[in-house]
Amino acid sequence: MTLDHEVPFLDWMGATLVEWGPEHALLSLAITPQHLNRSGVVHGGIYAVLADAAGGLAGCYSHHPAAHRKSYTLSLTTSFLGSSAQGRLNARGSLRRRGRRVYFATVEITGDTGELLAVGEGSFLYRTPGGAAHADSLPGAP
Amino acid sequence: MTLDHEVPFLDWMGATLVEWGPEHALLSLAITPQHLNRSGVVHGGIYAVLADAAGGLAGCYSHHPAAHRKSYTLSLTTSFLGSSAQGRLNARGSLRRRGRRVYFATVEITGDTGELLAVGEGSFLYRTPGGAAHADSLPGAP
Amino acid sequence: MTLDHEVPFLDWMGATLVEWGPEHALLSLAITPQHLNRSGVVHGGIYAVLADAAGGLAGCYSHHPAAHRKSYTLSLTTSFLGSSAQGRLNARGSLRRRGRRVYFATVEITGDTGELLAVGEGSFLYRTPGGAAHADSLPGAP
Amino acid sequence: MTLDHEVPFLDWMGATLVEWGPEHALLSLAITPQHLNRSGVVHGGIYAVLADAAGGLAGCYSHHPAAHRKSYTLSLTTSFLGSSAQGRLNARGSLRRRGRRVYFATVEITGDTGELLAVGEGSFLYRTPGGAAHADSLPGAP
Repeated sequence: MTLDHEVPFLDWMGATLVEWGPEHALLSLAITPQHLNRSGVVHGGIYAVLADAAGGLAGCYSHHPAAHRKSYTLSLTTSFLGSSAQGRLNARGSLRRRGRRVYFATVEITGDTGELLAVGEGSFLYRTPGGAAHADSLPGAP
Repeated sequence: MTLDHEVPFLDWMGATLVEWGPEHALLSLAITPQHLNRSGVVHGGIYAVLADAAGGLAGCYSHHPAAHRKSYTLSLTTSFLGSSAQGRLNARGSLRRRGRRVYFATVEITGDTGELLAVGEGSFLYRTPGGAAHADSLPGAP
Repeated sequence: MTLDHEVPFLDWMGATLVEWGPEHALLSLAITPQHLNRSGVVHGGIYAVLADAAGGLAGCYSHHPAAHRKSYTLSLTTSFLGSSAQGRLNARGSLRRRGRRVYFATVEITGDTGELLAVGEGSFLYRTPGGAAHADSLPGAP
Repeated sequence: MTLDHEVPFLDWMGATLVEWGPEHALLSLAITPQHLNRSGVVHGGIYAVLADAAGGLAGCYSHHPAAHRKSYTLSLTTSFLGSSAQGRLNARGSLRRRGRRVYFATVEITGDTGELLAVGEGSFLYRTPGGAAHADSLPGAP
């Protein structure tokens, strides 16, 4: 799970990749004071970050570590069901369907008690090798 | 614009509140290396954080600083149109419509050249004073 | 399941309410030629209609038929995973979380073979009795 | 504007294509009783249908009528800001950004008085000629 060190923002935020497989990814984050909003609970944006990352990674795994794919997030919807101020957040991304160029993933984010705190639904576009400058360049999740 | 210091996560990420009024909020972020993803551009989650915060704040301003409101994000959709690796991101949230309990906001995120990089659409629920523990408790944006 | 006759648009489109309970609703639609788009498959809007209706109804059931609740849809995201041109569409809406005023539902839409064709995620606001004209008036799903 | 007759579902619902150009599409619908929900206002699904269609068409225009493109909707988020029970609905879809394979569109739906009733944000994938059966087959909007 050395991927963490390739994703500066996740690393900086404190999120770690706990599991990664052909159709899923699990990220975990220990809540610290800098993750909070002005109401004293985890900032809504944190859930969106985790949903973006876990959903994106769910479609990028390869059995050959050097062959992990990269993708751009096209659209991400985050629904905020609950709140948390301490403990860990666990974000499990699952592949819903994979096409040749596009894939969809769903993400469930739970707290320590297993309560569902947020849900993400995303669509993603695979980057083609060396394709960084093509007309479909879009910001990437993972 | 001392709000920044009340939102630990935005503060920590480096985002500052540049403008705030009855129907809008403008956040700005100077891109630094820790904001990037493994493709070397700004992590998609950053756009979602900015959209969540700018959209949420667009509905919370009061002419009396002590009376700024608080809200929970219900749902946020972020569309990722472009990418950036340097300079600033500017996120302008605008109120679309305000009800008694619920409001909607749209957010446009641009880079230094003014190019539209991401768009957010969100729905938000006002917190009632002292209402932190009621059944509608949901994680908040701003 | 006489609800159908209270929802003119669903009735007109040919959708029927097959199951309805405290935390779910199942709608079914037999695909006919007028449901198609110019590519000859079911129009994407049909999936959104079914998601809106099944998700909304999932939060409105009462054991007392005269006490079924009504709600407004706040936000609905539909993800389109597959396509179909014949047979039936089944839309199962499930309550994700219910607050005092707001609830969330997820909807899975499958075809005859059980393949997942579309997914909906929605947030909804309960109408208060006699509240049709209040400032939160928003268009309703079910 | 003979496109109407190529889209059975829009035709059946009563929607007409009023304008169509390289980066926009305008649909109009005269509200009739069969468009209503059990609260007596336009069913939320109608707004989603119009958003899906107007957004999709905004990226498909060609100066050569025989060369209009086709696309699949990937994701569509509809925000419901208001309600209406009579008159017309006008749905203006505008292209936000076009890539080689993917495009984004936003849609504003207004009533007779010009009030904004709903907003749509969608991502779309171009169909390749003769590509109906490829692995990216997804249901199409326009």
